[in-house]
Amino acid sequence: MNVTVRGKTQHPRTVTFDARHNQVRLIEQRLLPHEFKIVATQNFRETALAIRDMVVRGAGAIGATAAYGLAQGARAFRGSDLKKFSRHVEAVYTALKEARPTAVDPVNAMNDVRAAMAHGESVEEQQAIALAAAEEFANEDVRHCEAIGKHGAKLIKNGMRVLTHCNAGWLAFVDVGSATAPIYAAQAAGRRFHVFCDETRPRSQGATLTAWELAQQGVSHQIIADNAAGHLMQRGEIDLVIVGSDRTLGRTGEVANKIGTYTKAVLAKRHGIPFYVAIPLSTIDWRIKRGFDIPIEERHEHEVLGAWGVIQSPTSDVQGLKSGKRVYVRVANPTSGARNPGFDVTPAELITGIITPAGIFKPTELWKQRTQLDNKL
Amino acid sequence: MNVTVRGKTQHPRTVTFDARHNQVRLIEQRLLPHEFKIVATQNFRETALAIRDMVVRGAGAIGATAAYGLAQGARAFRGSDLKKFSRHVEAVYTALKEARPTAVDPVNAMNDVRAAMAHGESVEEQQAIALAAAEEFANEDVRHCEAIGKHGAKLIKNGMRVLTHCNAGWLAFVDVGSATAPIYAAQAAGRRFHVFCDETRPRSQGATLTAWELAQQGVSHQIIADNAAGHLMQRGEIDLVIVGSDRTLGRTGEVANKIGTYTKAVLAKRHGIPFYVAIPLSTIDWRIKRGFDIPIEERHEHEVLGAWGVIQSPTSDVQGLKSGKRVYVRVANPTSGARNPGFDVTPAELITGIITPAGIFKPTELWKQRTQLDNKL
Repeated sequence: MNVTVRGKTQHPRTVTFDARHNQVRLIEQRLLPHEFKIVATQNFRETALAIRDMVVRGAGAIGATAAYGLAQGARAFRGSDLKKFSRHVEAVYTALKEARPTAVDPVNAMNDVRAAMAHGESVEEQQAIALAAAEEFANEDVRHCEAIGKHGAKLIKNGMRVLTHCNAGWLAFVDVGSATAPIYAAQAAGRRFHVFCDETRPRSQGATLTAWELAQQGVSHQIIADNAAGHLMQRGEIDLVIVGSDRTLGRTGEVANKIGTYTKAVLAKRHGIPFYVAIPLSTIDWRIKRGFDIPIEERHEHEVLGAWGVIQSPTSDVQGLKSGKRVYVRVANPTSGARNPGFDVTPAELITGIITPAGIFKPTELWKQRTQLDNKL
Repeated sequence: MNVTVRGKTQHPRTVTFDARHNQVRLIEQRLLPHEFKIVATQNFRETALAIRDMVVRGAGAIGATAAYGLAQGARAFRGSDLKKFSRHVEAVYTALKEARPTAVDPVNAMNDVRAAMAHGESVEEQQAIALAAAEEFANEDVRHCEAIGKHGAKLIKNGMRVLTHCNAGWLAFVDVGSATAPIYAAQAAGRRFHVFCDETRPRSQGATLTAWELAQQGVSHQIIADNAAGHLMQRGEIDLVIVGSDRTLGRTGEVANKIGTYTKAVLAKRHGIPFYVAIPLSTIDWRIKRGFDIPIEERHEHEVLGAWGVIQSPTSDVQGLKSGKRVYVRVANPTSGARNPGFDVTPAELITGIITPAGIFKPTELWKQRTQLDNKL
């Protein structure tokens, strides 16, 4: 298993490939933070299911999983007939693509792998190239995150209190993460600082995934209710905000990210606190002309009306409850409904800088730098 | 039982007195929103326990409960010896006062009742006065809330989308509520509008109590995550914000209220949305000179790290779970801690107006009007 050493602790990559057993190995993210488990898919169909059922989530992580899944499927082919092999690979590609139809990362990743395979002259050669190309995709994802960390780390000084929102951590990529990259790089450089994780209702990715990551890495941190950041800023207890992004507009510098990001940016502006967005280049959308046109997904209301967790103080009414088993509890009034926009858009004027693998840019500089940013590093 | 008719539905007051059985009757608020139950205390010691254990909560509601509890205790006295009676009443007063030592409302309410009792010349007369004075305190609480509603209702026009935070509703008072008073008055006037209830993590009073109240009253409403209000304001989907207050500074117009209130005020200001605070006069603090000096309670971290709710889809692992039984689930990473400030302070510049029983004032006008506002209506 691939092991990365950083700071005090070690952890496996989110996605790895076991060439000997032809398995994709994934951290089962649906069990976190209450249980850590690595699952292995036996074939490309199981890999597609793992993507579909969100065993793995996050742009970089599902990209790499699809790339490995394509190699896995290609390597399972027996025979030397190149035409049959091509049809087989096509079926693998389609199955993995359809696992999460609206995501662009699996498609981009698999296109990379397929383009490389075209250079192979036999089934065996193409199978070998597929695995090498998938490994290269995963390694590139890590290198990009490390470059974000290198540029962003200088923003974090000794003694700082850093706020982050949602999870743009190593669990969402192959390793390192985007918003967390500067944090891990500053830690590796020996700096001492404290991170506040927004709980990030309604899905609580900050309280579950980001807090889990930071605890694993030994980074000093505390979870806060999404309501608390304004108060902490007012009392001078936050020095820097770093968040990730689901889509950043290359033309305007507007940033779409998890619901609540905009609110934190408004508060940071009021208090003169630097607000940074860390992104891989694949996040930049060069096409959409204004943030208002970004479609905002309205998610299921049950996310707002309740919460997932582990029963901590079982009462006599709860018999035979398996320790660590997550349950959904309805918190809200049973006869009320909810609105649940999943994302919001932060305008460029509220953003101090965009941390990319190619350096830190003002949001409005992206368009000028598009030749540089639109290509791979 | 005291029943109020308003809009389409009826509901009992939060606190009432059953003179025949000498019982204080309370809505058991700890069971809401999943169960509605009225409990009766048999004697003043049970009433004190109900205050201490938060069967009843909210400034006006605990004030009235203490007033009724004092009458209840006084009426249980047998005999005609005024000296013995006085000592007994003193013990009742102390027991009720110590039920929630930092709250000012029970003390103020009981002082009213005791002052009235002094006019009685026999035990029997004083017992009768005690009950009459307690009823008067409760009725005055309702009249004050109705006056808030009368002044505030004109802010709510047909078609408006109103945001509220936490619960400053009739459950927190004897009836009507403060922040909800304009909503119920506008509804009674036949206006049609929609209310967004902030979930109000970490204790979720918006999703539980306010949403329950609005559902009972047939007011159109939806719950939103605390993260969502900024996005809705940005997209033009909120027209007005009304919140309550735990303490409003008469000298500066600063408002201390549930954590997250300040954030909503900052967002409302940015979007040009009117932001109102509805308060009874007892909420005004004429002494403290600046908001920064208001002590902000740091509450237990378990509130942030998990949630209380009812298991909705029991799995085979959960046997024998009583329907409707609330459980606490740990949501957050088990090895992480939390910060949990309970309140924040909103500066006067962000507040459009303070809705009081005596009218609507600019926050900075309170001090000029203190002669009017410092006395009862």
